[in-house]
Amino acid sequence: MLTRVKSAVATFVGGVMPGGGGGGVDHPGASEKFPYSRPEFLGLSPDEVECSADHCVRPIVIMKESKRLPWFTGYAEVINAGKSTLNEDQACCEVLAVKRRPPGSSPASSWGNVARRRSSLPNGEGLGLREDLANTDNLPFHYWALFDGHAGCGAAVVASRLLHHYIALHLQEVIDILCSPDLQPPTCLSEEPARTYLTPTFQRALTRAVSLRGAAGAPGSPSVRPTRFFAEKKVSQESLVVGAIEYAFKDMDVQIEKERAIYNISGGCTALVVVYVLGKIYVGNAGDSRAIIIRGGEIIPMSTEFTPESERQRLQFLAFMQPHLLGNEFTHLEFPRRVQRKDVGKRMLYRDFTMSGWAYKTIQDDDLKFPLIYGEGKKARVLATIGVTRGLGDHSLRVYDSNIFIKPFLSCCPEVQVYPLTQYQHGADDVLVLGTDGLWDVLSNQEVAESVTCFLANCDPDDPYRYTMAAQELVMRARGVLRDRGWRISSDRLGSGDDISVYVIPLMHGNMLD
Amino acid sequence: MLTRVKSAVATFVGGVMPGGGGGGVDHPGASEKFPYSRPEFLGLSPDEVECSADHCVRPIVIMKESKRLPWFTGYAEVINAGKSTLNEDQACCEVLAVKRRPPGSSPASSWGNVARRRSSLPNGEGLGLREDLANTDNLPFHYWALFDGHAGCGAAVVASRLLHHYIALHLQEVIDILCSPDLQPPTCLSEEPARTYLTPTFQRALTRAVSLRGAAGAPGSPSVRPTRFFAEKKVSQESLVVGAIEYAFKDMDVQIEKERAIYNISGGCTALVVVYVLGKIYVGNAGDSRAIIIRGGEIIPMSTEFTPESERQRLQFLAFMQPHLLGNEFTHLEFPRRVQRKDVGKRMLYRDFTMSGWAYKTIQDDDLKFPLIYGEGKKARVLATIGVTRGLGDHSLRVYDSNIFIKPFLSCCPEVQVYPLTQYQHGADDVLVLGTDGLWDVLSNQEVAESVTCFLANCDPDDPYRYTMAAQELVMRARGVLRDRGWRISSDRLGSGDDISVYVIPLMHGNMLD
Repeated sequence: MLTRVKSAVATFVGGVMPGGGGGGVDHPGASEKFPYSRPEFLGLSPDEVECSADHCVRPIVIMKESKRLPWFTGYAEVINAGKSTLNEDQACCEVLAVKRRPPGSSPASSWGNVARRRSSLPNGEGLGLREDLANTDNLPFHYWALFDGHAGCGAAVVASRLLHHYIALHLQEVIDILCSPDLQPPTCLSEEPARTYLTPTFQRALTRAVSLRGAAGAPGSPSVRPTRFFAEKKVSQESLVVGAIEYAFKDMDVQIEKERAIYNISGGCTALVVVYVLGKIYVGNAGDSRAIIIRGGEIIPMSTEFTPESERQRLQFLAFMQPHLLGNEFTHLEFPRRVQRKDVGKRMLYRDFTMSGWAYKTIQDDDLKFPLIYGEGKKARVLATIGVTRGLGDHSLRVYDSNIFIKPFLSCCPEVQVYPLTQYQHGADDVLVLGTDGLWDVLSNQEVAESVTCFLANCDPDDPYRYTMAAQELVMRARGVLRDRGWRISSDRLGSGDDISVYVIPLMHGNMLD
Repeated sequence: MLTRVKSAVATFVGGVMPGGGGGGVDHPGASEKFPYSRPEFLGLSPDEVECSADHCVRPIVIMKESKRLPWFTGYAEVINAGKSTLNEDQACCEVLAVKRRPPGSSPASSWGNVARRRSSLPNGEGLGLREDLANTDNLPFHYWALFDGHAGCGAAVVASRLLHHYIALHLQEVIDILCSPDLQPPTCLSEEPARTYLTPTFQRALTRAVSLRGAAGAPGSPSVRPTRFFAEKKVSQESLVVGAIEYAFKDMDVQIEKERAIYNISGGCTALVVVYVLGKIYVGNAGDSRAIIIRGGEIIPMSTEFTPESERQRLQFLAFMQPHLLGNEFTHLEFPRRVQRKDVGKRMLYRDFTMSGWAYKTIQDDDLKFPLIYGEGKKARVLATIGVTRGLGDHSLRVYDSNIFIKPFLSCCPEVQVYPLTQYQHGADDVLVLGTDGLWDVLSNQEVAESVTCFLANCDPDDPYRYTMAAQELVMRARGVLRDRGWRISSDRLGSGDDISVYVIPLMHGNMLD
């Protein structure tokens, strides 16, 4: 049953398939810049891409045996059960090397200095390095990413092709610092001694040594200490990598915004990326995908999901501060259900951006507006439109039949968590699992950890293909089997009808030269 | 050395002492409504209040043996080393009972229905209940609070006298629900069936079953499910208590704002409150005081501090959204040090409200403005003025010699954490420790836990005075001893020169009738 695409059924049911020749320029959801396809590392032929999009069979797609990803990473994916014609998930996995810039060159000219190490070779052995990458001055980094698109494939496809270049670009800006482990990152590059500039108000304010708590200088204080300037804050090398990833997400989002009209980049996408550089794993997440580490059977969450519920207070705060964004159609207040005309004048439960509890308020006409955040769990929506609050794209998205834009409420900024990989010893069964929400909607962290741990324990520890099989097993468990026209998983629960994409990344390999 | 106030030295050094007769109406920092004093439960005479304010001796003040707090709570305090004339910390501890409202009465008329149970009796035994409180319909709750004032005592004094009444008021609004443990809080009080009101846009939007993720209805989706309305959200009884505490803080802040001119209410204050009701402990915190539970030697943090550093992103976000609040004098960006005129055009580390890492940007003229958040650790300030970002009061506070108000950046809203007390078994040495920042600035959670655990282990478990002695021990350890004109604690570290106030609340008593 868990066959690769090539052996899947040859007949197609439901929906238009992606353009045969791999071009797909005119296809809905495909951008002109990067046509729709499946992840490059899968190496699928156009025929195989077509086969992968069978909404009835939902074949689970895994790596060809002739190819492999760095660290023997396992990957598996499956298309949705008919929610959208194409698989709106995308993935990318690369090993890149950032070259040191020649002195005097500008960052803008440095795209050519980021070289990609081919990570999947026909013979499946080792990594091929282009000659200019063998230079020890280069900083290699590993990259895995999942993108979950909505309202079209365009943003996810573009992000899967470009985001790692932006990360490389911003890592390159700090490469000299990162490659000098003992160097405290300089606050200012090519800094010269200078006089602190103060506006007139702050010259006065500082002279007074303003300080209302915890130190001298409060009104009425018997002792006033002399003015002093604060020392420079210490900035860690780690926080420069975090900053590079954050910056890269912003740049990627700006590029999508600029090019969306020219290249027909449709919709938006979540982004979950893993960067391994200089002994540490950085997990950046903007959206509702999830990453967990399973180490010795213990679960270490490496991301949090950004949804209307988890980001309620941020969204309500923004709406409260900038009410024009609600177009006089929405209220930033939350109620446990829609307010009805007859409720006006009565007391009803509510909460605003400052509250995590609930209280009663007297309902007024204004409360009849549609709530900024409505619905619960997977059905919660911002502005009645979207169920995820961070990601890339969506610049054109509006509330249906209105001029209210959603984008101001969405953030393209990832939360980045750091795992100091080389500080721990890892066994062959210790892994980092990444999955789009198709996986986590139906399986808990615990179920995923048990499944992976149990599966790997029954594999030959030296089989490089075991992580691929574990990823396939996870997708299989989340999709389930077709029974009575519905997908069912264990305990007769409903399987996920969403696109599902999963990485299983062994952590033991982080300490080895790859 | 650890003597009570009465036996402290009788000579005073440094600063003006609070007005002799306890009136203190004209004293700076005293409000006309509630004159400056020490916590009511200490029962200090005017002379003792004067003695307590000796900045040189810094006597540690504890409860008189003839009095006791509920649960045999320990309390101790000491004044600062000269930072301000008066002790700007305040405390309150009460057992209150909320009466059920007669049907039809309005919440506004219900102050008279909140009765206080006298919690400290001359004979030190049991609690006296006024006749009207013996009614089993009443809901009793326990209350402990610490307030740490700045720029005057007024806000802290007023809050210590009134905040618990607001909490009682808002608990009363939900008393009927809280007293019916199986009742799901009704969304609307006296609700009647009614038709959902929809604005025209949302009638259209909902008819389309707008749904971009996780469900049918996305553009191009082969299947569109019918429109449906979401069910009511479940609201827990616990979240009503949380809401009542949150609401009470807001009300308290509004009252301070309204009355600050009339009653000469000066400055602002942090607020840390503990409410024990219906088997659960609720810890509400707005400021930089701290609460921890020590159970079986294990530390359970029960609050987080709100400072310019911990709230950086919220403050920067607000300033970015409402730049006029910065008065063209400040920038919302953060740099590791002040930007200098000579830095313009160079690349310097920075971060904005979206970032937790650092990146380089090219410095422009605008970056020469003073940063919204400046300084590190205890020296970090918002708008060069204040080192704590949540609390009550501060409505008049402005950046020195400017018209830039600080209050928009401060939040009066507490974070409320819940501890299900009666779900655990507690020993005599399991306690909740509350302290103002004077304690935590010099002692870590670990040091406090070790000190308390070790101290209590050496006390008679049946001695009701042991928690008072433990609180005294903590204040003593944080203040230290006067040596060479400076206060020194263990390992020759500097002791806290701040006001220090500490509760040690035994948890074993929560399960007993008190």
